[in-house]
Amino acid sequence: MTATQAFIAACADVLGAAHVLTDAHDTEPYLVDWRKRYRGRACAVLLPADTAQVAAVMRLAHEHRIAIVPQGGNTGLAGGATPDSSGAQAVIGLKRLNRIRGVDPHNNTITVEAGVVLSEIQARAESAHRLFPLSLAAEGSCTIGGNLSTNAGGTGVLRYGNTRELCLGLEVVTPQGEIWDGLRGLRKDNTGYDLRDLFIGAEGTLGIITAAVMKLHPAPVAKVTALAGLASPHAALDFLSMAQHHAGALLTGFELMSDFSMRIVGKHFPQLRYPFAEPHGQTVLLELSDSESDAHARALFERLMEAALDEGIVENAVVAENLAQSRAFWDLREHIPLAQAEEGLNIKHDIAVPISSIGRFIDETDAIIAKAVPGARMVTFGHLGDGNLHYNVQAPEGVDAKRFLDEFQTPINALVYDQVHAHRGSISAEHGLGQLKVDEAMHYKSPVEVRLMRAIKAALDPHNLMNPGKVVRADAPAAKENIA
Amino acid sequence: MTATQAFIAACADVLGAAHVLTDAHDTEPYLVDWRKRYRGRACAVLLPADTAQVAAVMRLAHEHRIAIVPQGGNTGLAGGATPDSSGAQAVIGLKRLNRIRGVDPHNNTITVEAGVVLSEIQARAESAHRLFPLSLAAEGSCTIGGNLSTNAGGTGVLRYGNTRELCLGLEVVTPQGEIWDGLRGLRKDNTGYDLRDLFIGAEGTLGIITAAVMKLHPAPVAKVTALAGLASPHAALDFLSMAQHHAGALLTGFELMSDFSMRIVGKHFPQLRYPFAEPHGQTVLLELSDSESDAHARALFERLMEAALDEGIVENAVVAENLAQSRAFWDLREHIPLAQAEEGLNIKHDIAVPISSIGRFIDETDAIIAKAVPGARMVTFGHLGDGNLHYNVQAPEGVDAKRFLDEFQTPINALVYDQVHAHRGSISAEHGLGQLKVDEAMHYKSPVEVRLMRAIKAALDPHNLMNPGKVVRADAPAAKENIA
Repeated sequence: MTATQAFIAACADVLGAAHVLTDAHDTEPYLVDWRKRYRGRACAVLLPADTAQVAAVMRLAHEHRIAIVPQGGNTGLAGGATPDSSGAQAVIGLKRLNRIRGVDPHNNTITVEAGVVLSEIQARAESAHRLFPLSLAAEGSCTIGGNLSTNAGGTGVLRYGNTRELCLGLEVVTPQGEIWDGLRGLRKDNTGYDLRDLFIGAEGTLGIITAAVMKLHPAPVAKVTALAGLASPHAALDFLSMAQHHAGALLTGFELMSDFSMRIVGKHFPQLRYPFAEPHGQTVLLELSDSESDAHARALFERLMEAALDEGIVENAVVAENLAQSRAFWDLREHIPLAQAEEGLNIKHDIAVPISSIGRFIDETDAIIAKAVPGARMVTFGHLGDGNLHYNVQAPEGVDAKRFLDEFQTPINALVYDQVHAHRGSISAEHGLGQLKVDEAMHYKSPVEVRLMRAIKAALDPHNLMNPGKVVRADAPAAKENIA
Repeated sequence: MTATQAFIAACADVLGAAHVLTDAHDTEPYLVDWRKRYRGRACAVLLPADTAQVAAVMRLAHEHRIAIVPQGGNTGLAGGATPDSSGAQAVIGLKRLNRIRGVDPHNNTITVEAGVVLSEIQARAESAHRLFPLSLAAEGSCTIGGNLSTNAGGTGVLRYGNTRELCLGLEVVTPQGEIWDGLRGLRKDNTGYDLRDLFIGAEGTLGIITAAVMKLHPAPVAKVTALAGLASPHAALDFLSMAQHHAGALLTGFELMSDFSMRIVGKHFPQLRYPFAEPHGQTVLLELSDSESDAHARALFERLMEAALDEGIVENAVVAENLAQSRAFWDLREHIPLAQAEEGLNIKHDIAVPISSIGRFIDETDAIIAKAVPGARMVTFGHLGDGNLHYNVQAPEGVDAKRFLDEFQTPINALVYDQVHAHRGSISAEHGLGQLKVDEAMHYKSPVEVRLMRAIKAALDPHNLMNPGKVVRADAPAAKENIA
C-alpha cells in the first residue's frame, strides 16, 4: 500500500467513506475553479464535519506527507483553492463546517465556522439588529474561511476595513494537526505575536482556518446613495477629501466609474438609466450610512453637493430620493463587469496605489498603454476611497478579443505592474496571489521580504504540506543573499 | 579585544564616538524605566541618527552576537525597553530618528520615523486639518516606534482602533541588519504574509521598527462630552449598546468609573466637581466626535439621554455645555490614577474581557477578592467600550500599603488572571508583556500558541539577539509536545 493509499484509508476511518471522495465524477467540482481558468487533480477530496476531524485529517497528512489544498466556496479569482496537476495533493473541503456558533450582541461579535456562507452571516447579524459589513459579488456562495484566507475586500472597506479588520479571533488547525484556539472576542490584547493576522491572507499556506470571531457593527437606520459627474480622477480625489470632511465616518462608499465604463453599461444594459443628460469624464457613486434618519443623510448629501458644485469640483450631482433610486445607482456600478463581459474578453488588473496617486497613475498608465496598443479601451472603475482600481484593458474596437489577449496579456500586465510598482502600489489589492500572481509577487517584492516570508513558511510548515506553490514559492531556490 | 569591545569600537566608527555611550553617568537614563521599577546594565547605549545607521549597528551586533534592546521614549509600563542585569546587552536608543518624512493629505497618511514623539504627530496632523487619533497619558514623551512595538491603546480605540489599526506600512531593520522597506500607504494589499502586523506588538523581539506610514482621519469639527450615573456595570453595558445605536461611529469614547474611583478623586482633588448630587454605582463618560456641528452632537446626546432615562437604564445624565465643561468631565476620568497614587500603593491590572462579560467579571472577581482579602478596596475604571478595565486593588482602609503589596500582590494577581483566563480575556490589554508579564503569558497561553510564537521567534531571530527574554522566552525549555 502506498503512502497515499494508506492516507486515504485512514481518512475514511476518521470521516466515514461517504466523506472521502475519489471518484472522478464526485471530485470534479473541487478540481476546477468557478471561472474554469484553473484545473487540477487530487488523490482525494476530504469533507470533514468539524474542527476535530480537520485536525485528525491534518495529522494523517502530516504523518504520510500528503500536501493539502484547503477549499471554501471555490469562488476565488486567483486559483488559490485549486490543486496542482500532480494528483498527489488532497483537497480539504470545509463546507460542512457550517455552524454559526453564537452571536454576542453586547460584544458585537459573531462566532462562525469556516464553511459558513457570507450572506448567512450578514442575515444572522441583521436578525440581531447588527451589521456585518463585508459585502462582495460572491457573497451568496463564498465562505468566511475563504474570505479570511484571502483577506477579502469589497464595497465596505472605506468605513469598515477589509476582512482582516473585521476579525477578532481565529481557530486554526496547524500543518502538524494541532488546534490553535485563538477564538478571542477582544478589542485589546497585547500578549505576544499577532498570529491571527499571520493566518489571515495566507491563503491556506500556513494552516487551515476552521472558525473565527468576527466583529459586528450597529446597523445603520438609513443608507442613501448619490451620483456625481466630474471631469477627471483628480477632481474625484478633491471630492473625496471634501466628502470625508463633511460626512466623516458616515461615508461608507466612494466608487469611481470612468466615462467608458458608463458607456458600455449603457450599450449593453440600456434599461439602466445614466441620470445625467451629458456624459462626464468620471462618475462617482457615494453612499452614506446614517444612524439617525434618511432625512438627515439626504440633508448632509445636499450640503456636500452644493459645496462641491460651488467650488467647481463637481459638474453635476443627484441624490437618490428613495431606496429604488439608490438601488438603481448601485446597479450602474455593479453592471460594469457584466457589460465588460458582453463587450468581450479583456485583461483585468486588481491593483491599489496610494489614494493621492490615483490621478497620476491613471494618466501615466493610460498614456503608456495607448502608445503600446493604440486604440486599447480602458475600463477603469473601482473603490476610489480605498485606492483600489479595477484597471481593465479591452481590445481596440473591431479587434478580435481572443487574439488581442494572446498577443498582449503578458506585455500589458508587465506595463501595468511596473507602473503599480513605481507608485508603491499593490498588484493584488483584494484578490490575493493564489497561483495566478505568485511569480509576479516574487518578482516585485524585495529580496528581504521574500526571505522573511520564506522563513515564516518554513518555520510553521517545514514539510511544505499546506497549499504548496501558492503565495510564496517555498520550493524555489532561495534569494541569493543569505545572511542569516 | 573581546567581541564586546570590538563591537563598541566598530559602532563608534559608524555612529561617531559621541553617539556611543559607555560612561555610567551618560547611560543611566537608558538603564532604568521611568517608574524606576526595572533597572538593567548595558555594554553600551547606541544612538543612531537614521535607518542606515540602525542597520549598520545591527549588522555589527549580528556579527559579534551582541543582544540588542531597542528603546523609544522609555515610557513603557512592563519593562520591555530595559536591558537585563548581565551588562552584555546593548541599548539602541531611537530618539534621533525623529523626522516626519511627509504628510499626504489626499491619502490621509503621515510617514514618521520611530523616534518621533506622539504629540508631534498629533500636532502635525492637526496642522493638515486631520486627526491622528492615538492618544494616551504619555503622549508628550512616548515615541511612535514604542507605540507600534507595544500596540498601544488609549482613549480613542472604540472608534479608531489600537495603534495596529492606525498603521499601513513599516520600515524595519531585521536581526541580520537588513532593511525591510514595507512603507506602503495602501488600504488594500493582498500580496503575501502580513509582516507588518507581526512586527507590531512584538516589543522589539523580531526586529527594530525604524519608520511607519500611519493613517490620518478627517478632523471632527466638534467634540462633546457627557456624564451618566448608573446603578451597575450591567446597566452600563445596556447603555453602551443604546449609545452605539444612536450615535454609530460618532461615539468615540465610553469610559466606566466606579463609585469608589469617584470618591477618591473627590477626596484628593476636591476642586474637581462630581456633577451629580448623589453618588451612583457607576459613572460613564461619553464622547461624541461630530463632523457637522457642536449643536448637532449635543442634540444627539440629548435624545440618547432622554431615551436612556425613559428606559431606566440611566439614573442621571448631564451633557457638557461647553469646552470647559467637557474638559472638566475628562479631568474626573484622568485624575483617577493620580487619586489612586495619593491613596497609596496598589495592585494594578490592565485586563480585557469580551465586553458582554464585563458585568459578570466584575461581580465574580470582586466577590473572590473580598473573600481573600476582606476590606480590599477596588478601583475599577477603564475603556468599557473596548472591554478594557484597569482593575486595581487598594489596601483595606488603615492597612499599610507596602505590607499589603508584599503579602498580597502575587496571590491577588493569580486570582485576577485566573478569572481573566476563565472569561477568555487578556492579562495585558494595552501595556504589552515586556519582562513584567512574560512568565504569566507563557503560563496562560496554550502549548500550541507558545510553540507557534517560539517557531516565529527562532525563524526570524535565530541567534536570539532581539530584546531577549521579553514577550516569549526563546531560551526556556520548549513545551513538552514537539510534534513538528
